[in-house]
Amino acid sequence: MYRKIYLLPLLFLLFSCKKNEITATVNPKDSTASIAYSDNPLPSWNDGQLKNDIIAYVKKVTSEGTPDFVPIVNRIATFDNDGTLWAEKPYVQELFAFYRVKKMVEANPALAQKQPFKAVIEKDKSFFEKGGDKALIELVAATHTGMTEDEFDASTKEFFAGAKYPGKNVSLKQIRYQPQLELLNYLRANGFKTFIVTGGTVEVVRAISADFYGIPKDQVVGTSFKYKFDDAKNAIQRQPALDHFNDKEGKPVGIQLHIGQRPVFACGNEGGAGDIAMLKYSQGNKYPSFQLLINHNDSIREYNYQEKDNLSLNAASNNKWHIVSIKDDWKKVFAD
Amino acid sequence: MYRKIYLLPLLFLLFSCKKNEITATVNPKDSTASIAYSDNPLPSWNDGQLKNDIIAYVKKVTSEGTPDFVPIVNRIATFDNDGTLWAEKPYVQELFAFYRVKKMVEANPALAQKQPFKAVIEKDKSFFEKGGDKALIELVAATHTGMTEDEFDASTKEFFAGAKYPGKNVSLKQIRYQPQLELLNYLRANGFKTFIVTGGTVEVVRAISADFYGIPKDQVVGTSFKYKFDDAKNAIQRQPALDHFNDKEGKPVGIQLHIGQRPVFACGNEGGAGDIAMLKYSQGNKYPSFQLLINHNDSIREYNYQEKDNLSLNAASNNKWHIVSIKDDWKKVFAD
Repeated sequence: MYRKIYLLPLLFLLFSCKKNEITATVNPKDSTASIAYSDNPLPSWNDGQLKNDIIAYVKKVTSEGTPDFVPIVNRIATFDNDGTLWAEKPYVQELFAFYRVKKMVEANPALAQKQPFKAVIEKDKSFFEKGGDKALIELVAATHTGMTEDEFDASTKEFFAGAKYPGKNVSLKQIRYQPQLELLNYLRANGFKTFIVTGGTVEVVRAISADFYGIPKDQVVGTSFKYKFDDAKNAIQRQPALDHFNDKEGKPVGIQLHIGQRPVFACGNEGGAGDIAMLKYSQGNKYPSFQLLINHNDSIREYNYQEKDNLSLNAASNNKWHIVSIKDDWKKVFAD
Repeated sequence: MYRKIYLLPLLFLLFSCKKNEITATVNPKDSTASIAYSDNPLPSWNDGQLKNDIIAYVKKVTSEGTPDFVPIVNRIATFDNDGTLWAEKPYVQELFAFYRVKKMVEANPALAQKQPFKAVIEKDKSFFEKGGDKALIELVAATHTGMTEDEFDASTKEFFAGAKYPGKNVSLKQIRYQPQLELLNYLRANGFKTFIVTGGTVEVVRAISADFYGIPKDQVVGTSFKYKFDDAKNAIQRQPALDHFNDKEGKPVGIQLHIGQRPVFACGNEGGAGDIAMLKYSQGNKYPSFQLLINHNDSIREYNYQEKDNLSLNAASNNKWHIVSIKDDWKKVFAD
């Protein structure tokens, strides 16, 4: 089931939702398709070395007849989601878990007297402190499994239709990073196939991937539960056991299972050290590759947070990966 | 690990390779892209009810503004591979396993004295009869795992470059079904995203999916082994344990894990009852859907074989799925 490292923020969130705030820089232009081939394909990126490096890489690997040319079938670009394509303070996944608790208790009020629902409803921190991993696992399993895929799908749709990001009265669509939407479009316009490779559970991200990022469901790789085909219902039943945990070393594994080749372009973020293995795996590509790591260093417009041991930024420095300084490299942070 | 039902034909093949023959109907036209929008998009399909039904379905679900219209993001088409896109007498997967034994013994002649390699080299039927599942599993694990993905990839490439189909001196590319190549192209030209959903191990099929079928690696769903990211090697190591068995009830599960939605168009074949669950799952789609099952009833041009209990054809009849009679519906069977 969920590893401790992934679940602890959930406990944190449970009692600190209101502390989090995002400052969205709103801009009326959402569609970025038109900028893909323009002189300035990345308008929300500040001019400078990093922007030049991204554009130079894309030009290099798409120039036919040169030694650096990458065939279209090998132009695989993988992006982490939380903290890379949208904000992760708090995780949307956690908002969804709490939403599910609320809906389940509404449908069956007796659940409010039953753990782990009771603890969430009553904000009983001690229950999760005492119960540790086991209690948290119980919560995620209770809210994400034990139903068919069709039922779960309906539930994610409902959640995203109404959800607001804590601390800021904006829809979840507005916590996407505008520069990253432009980067996705720019890569696609140059023949790259863009994938989300997330530690989040795959169906939650698939519920919005096309609408939010222009990425179809089958191009989302994520954490998954065990599924069972129920012949009588003609439906997939979600089982309360983890199938694949798609974080850290799980990301290259998820990429191989799903995509079947190393990405040439990989983008992640520092914060939970979740993307180091993916970026390293990309760098092992036989074709020229590009690794990008986002540094959350903008306390004014987004957040400022670091890993205790600075693992991701150290790996980036040691391996010569490109680092995005949100403060310096992004002209604008959030999408409309 | 491999289920008995999947491994038994391997044992059969080991001692009967030369009995199998295919009669390839060769035609110089391989590319079918030009026919996708023509008056006759399926030239290798005989005129008649089935061909009319396929074309009527595609027209119906692509007519915008009608109640039967299927949005592009939901136009998912899934095809089984063995017996559906290419011949399965014998399975190519089995040819690959024997090829691997040969190469491994060449590289390390001492293996010829070690089981299960010894039994394959010496065609020792009794070893596999006595050893049962355990011996067969040992053979598949020994030939398909214990190496990195990069090494396995190189090995599949080498195999396909030289392999000939038993009983007929043709490359494996020539055992593809020409009518199905046209159907894949026709669907793609109408906005469908085509996937292979195979019981075979995923990397073996991915090695040829783009070249043989125009299907990128990430659109192949198959049986997979456990993978482990080896940080020191910066590579995926293939472990000798099954991750997902993508046959029968495993197919809807593989589809959900990988594609994330029910296909509207699903095509399989009778022979091993492997596609019933996939076709049923497709039929549960909320959009108008189409199910196609190939009946291998052409002993002259392909093969004539049935399931003992006729499970697939009975399911097709009970659920009103469309049945391809190779004998009657296909003008030509094999591609060049």
